[in-house]
Parts: sequence; structure tokens; C-alpha cells
Amino acid sequence: MKIDTLTIIGVGLIGGSIGLAARRRGLATHVIGAGRQQASLDRARSIGAIDESTLNLASAVERAEFAVFCTPVDKIVEQVVQYAAGCRPGTLLCDAGSTKVAIVEGIEGKLPAGVYFVGSHPLAGSEKHGPEFADAELFQGRVTVLTPTPKTEPAAVERVSEFWQALGARVRLMSPEEHDRGLALTSHLPHLVASALAGVLPDGLHELTATGFRDATRIAAGAPSLWTAILTHNRLAVLDALARLTERLGRFRTALEANDSVAVDDLLAQAKKVRDALGS
Amino acid sequence: MKIDTLTIIGVGLIGGSIGLAARRRGLATHVIGAGRQQASLDRARSIGAIDESTLNLASAVERAEFAVFCTPVDKIVEQVVQYAAGCRPGTLLCDAGSTKVAIVEGIEGKLPAGVYFVGSHPLAGSEKHGPEFADAELFQGRVTVLTPTPKTEPAAVERVSEFWQALGARVRLMSPEEHDRGLALTSHLPHLVASALAGVLPDGLHELTATGFRDATRIAAGAPSLWTAILTHNRLAVLDALARLTERLGRFRTALEANDSVAVDDLLAQAKKVRDALGS
Repeated sequence: MKIDTLTIIGVGLIGGSIGLAARRRGLATHVIGAGRQQASLDRARSIGAIDESTLNLASAVERAEFAVFCTPVDKIVEQVVQYAAGCRPGTLLCDAGSTKVAIVEGIEGKLPAGVYFVGSHPLAGSEKHGPEFADAELFQGRVTVLTPTPKTEPAAVERVSEFWQALGARVRLMSPEEHDRGLALTSHLPHLVASALAGVLPDGLHELTATGFRDATRIAAGAPSLWTAILTHNRLAVLDALARLTERLGRFRTALEANDSVAVDDLLAQAKKVRDALGS
Repeated sequence: MKIDTLTIIGVGLIGGSIGLAARRRGLATHVIGAGRQQASLDRARSIGAIDESTLNLASAVERAEFAVFCTPVDKIVEQVVQYAAGCRPGTLLCDAGSTKVAIVEGIEGKLPAGVYFVGSHPLAGSEKHGPEFADAELFQGRVTVLTPTPKTEPAAVERVSEFWQALGARVRLMSPEEHDRGLALTSHLPHLVASALAGVLPDGLHELTATGFRDATRIAAGAPSLWTAILTHNRLAVLDALARLTERLGRFRTALEANDSVAVDDLLAQAKKVRDALGS
């Protein structure tokens, strides 16, 4: 796969990493970085993530053969629909948003003829943000989920899949609903829980935290505005996941109230089996 | 500080690290490793954590000038009381257990005259276990909590404090109750929550987990039997901590049910502030 002009809208950790990977792997002849903040664009350019930067998002998307929206989930629908209006037929658009149902539903049916959008979500990132944390190998060996619907053009899915694979990712296809239900359990609920754990730490107990607490709460350092958008976008699936967790916590509570070591051990052993299967 | 014979009962990750650190820092002339499993003792000796190994715990403690019990929290009271009976006056005993009230209460008043025990807990370790994960620098810069009571001999507290400091630790003193309430929030609750998160992950979603899930659940790989003992030992404080967390999760639920972005953002921002203060 070879892209003539690749436009990245939003050059933070994810957008910057896409630019670095695309340039290093020779995937694109020319990479345009577009965003609202000149300082971020300058940093992205100085690390070699983009060839050109602009504050003119519409023009950057119009000039692209392939554009990736790496902006907060609550901005993607509006940006894609607005800027797609000026795109040439054959332009491919995708995103890197952590939720998919609201984004895909919001865009489907609103694009000009011949302009295609495929929802996508690379399962990579961290609690850090900004192009200074970009990494050309961020997607290597990681899963990127694409969420086509029955209305999505198959050839567009094929091309967007090639794009993420060219960045090193393993591509998986699922429906937007399946994605959002799954990510509610594997990403959104853990974020909420990490935030709750950090949130109940009283002042003065910081010195009693060790690596366990730090690991368990690391993601709570993520940007609140980004995560508020994710959690509210996917709130029904998150509420369902939270109900499952609450039920599980209730089993621990019952076992501890009864001083039932066998039941506690059983709950811990089930969890260890799941966690061991994931590797470090 | 210089110890003639240091005995370590239980040469896993913690006991092995104590041995490595004590030998490397010249803290002890002779280090005896005592345990139930010859294979663990052999591994501890092969990595240089101990000078001598024995399956005879009583003899190993009787020969010691200073002994550290690095065994599961539900074994410590019985072992200390039993083996202290054969100790010479002046012998110092401490432990590395993750709970303190039950251990300190169980031992206090049961030792021969001139034999002293000081509850201690190095806030170091990981989900891994076994002497092969021992690290001479494990305690460097980390906090070790000592939990003397009004009945504890001050000179013994001073010596045990010197011991942990000689291993590189920063020593903090608090009551057993204060320790257990604090650790319920900073260690025991996070373990329980990580286990609950891992426990609700359905089969087939493993591929949708990324670094966030792995970080948040890493401690759930800890040995269930050790953690069952810790959670049940400290169950009242853990139940109290769990109630606080449940209240916090309830605030998230209410905010999401009401689609109240401001409230969600506020909860996330409070947590980020706490987490940022801890560093990576």
C-alpha cells in the first residue's frame, strides 16, 4: 500500500505515532498534520511525525487521499461530516476513537458519494498524551479493531485494513456494538475503577502506596476530558459492565463478611487464571 | 549495624531480597535461609541470597541474633511464638507480613524474657514470587512500616529500624491498627478490585485488552493463598475500604445514568490529581 497524501487530524500520542510509523515505513509520500494548536503541530513536526502542518483542517482533509481523525471521540462525527463535504471521490477516512457506535451511526449516510469512512480503533495508547510520547512502533503487534456495518463499502474496509496493517497492527473486524460492549469491559470500566480507587485514597496515605497501587491506578492519570467523552459516549455498555463488577465485588464482600476463606480463595484463583492468560 | 547470624524464614521474593541485600551490604556475617522446600532454599543459595540453608526452622531461629519471618501472614504468629521459645535473650525477631494487627496481637505477651518482636512490613514486592525474582535493591528508597505498641521494647524498635534502613528502606512507625487501615486502602482493596476486574472478563475478550487493562489487573496474578490470608486477616478494614469504593462507584453510576458529563469529569479530575501526585 502506498498513500500519496496522508492527513492526520490531531497529532497527539496516537496521531503522532501514526505519522512516525507511516513515514518510517514509507507508507505515505507526504504526511500533513492538522490541528488546533500550533505548538503541538510544531512538536509533531520536530520529531519527524509529519512533513507539513496546518491549522486549516478543512483544507488538510480535502487534499488527502487518506485521512485519519485522532481527535477526542466527541469531536469526530462533526469533523468527519464537515470536512468530508469537500473531499474528492475516492477519499478514505477513518478514525482512532475509543468508542464506535455513536461515531459510526453519526457519520453513516452523511458523506458525499465516493467518500468512505470506516470506524477504527487501535488498542494502543497510554495515560500520557502529546506528540512527545509518540512511538513509531506503538501499533506493532497490537490489535486495531475496524467496525464496518452492512452499509460500509467493502473495498474501503479492505484499504483501511491495509493501512493499519502497514503500521504493524493486527486487524480485527466486529460490529460497532460488539466493539463498544467489549471495550466497556476491557478499557472503559478499568478506567472508571482505577479512578474510583485513586479517588478514595485519603490525603496522607500516599507514602503507603507501592507498585501494586501505582499499577492499578496508572490509567487514572489520563486526561479527564477525553475519558468523560468516552464514558458518556458508551455509557449504557459502561453501566452494564459496572453492574457486573459490582456483582463481583458483592461476592467478595459476602465472602469476607462470612470470613469464608474458601470463597475468597476461589474468587482470587479465578481472577489469577484470567490474568495469567494475558501475560505481563 | 552488624549482625553475626541473620536467619531468614521463607526465602521467596521478599526473603531472598533481604538475603541478597544483607550480604551485598555487609550487614550480616552469616545468613541462614530456613524453609519447608529444599528446592526454594537451593535456588536462594544459588543466587547468593543465603550462606546456608536448612529445613530445621527451630534450629535456624535459635542460632540467630536477628531473625526475619517472611512467611504467609497466617503462619507468622504460630512460627514466631513456637521458635522464640528456644531463643537466647537478646534475640530480635521481626516479620515482613502485609497485615499487622492480628500478627502483633497474636505474638505480644507470648515471648520469653529478653526476646523481642517488632512487627514490620516492607512496602515492596510484586505479583511474582520465588527467590528467582529476588533483588538486592528491592527495599532501596521504599517505605518499611514498623508497628510497635506501647508494650514493645524501644531498644528493639531502634535495632529493627536500623536493620531495615541498612537494607535501604525508609522506616515509618505507626500503630498496627493505623497500618492495617491504611494498607486496606493502598494494597488490599486494589488487589480485590483488580481480581474483580479480571474476574468479569468474559472468555474471548482477551484480544481486546491493552496496556490499561494489563496494568489495572497485574496484581491479580498474585498467589491466591497468600492474598486470601491477607484479605481475611484484615477483613474488617478491607470491608470498610470496599464500602468507600462502592460509594465512589455509585457516584460514577449516578452520573452516567443521568448522562451528567460535568459530574463524570469532576470524579475523573479528582482521581487524576491524586494519581499525578504519586508519580509513575
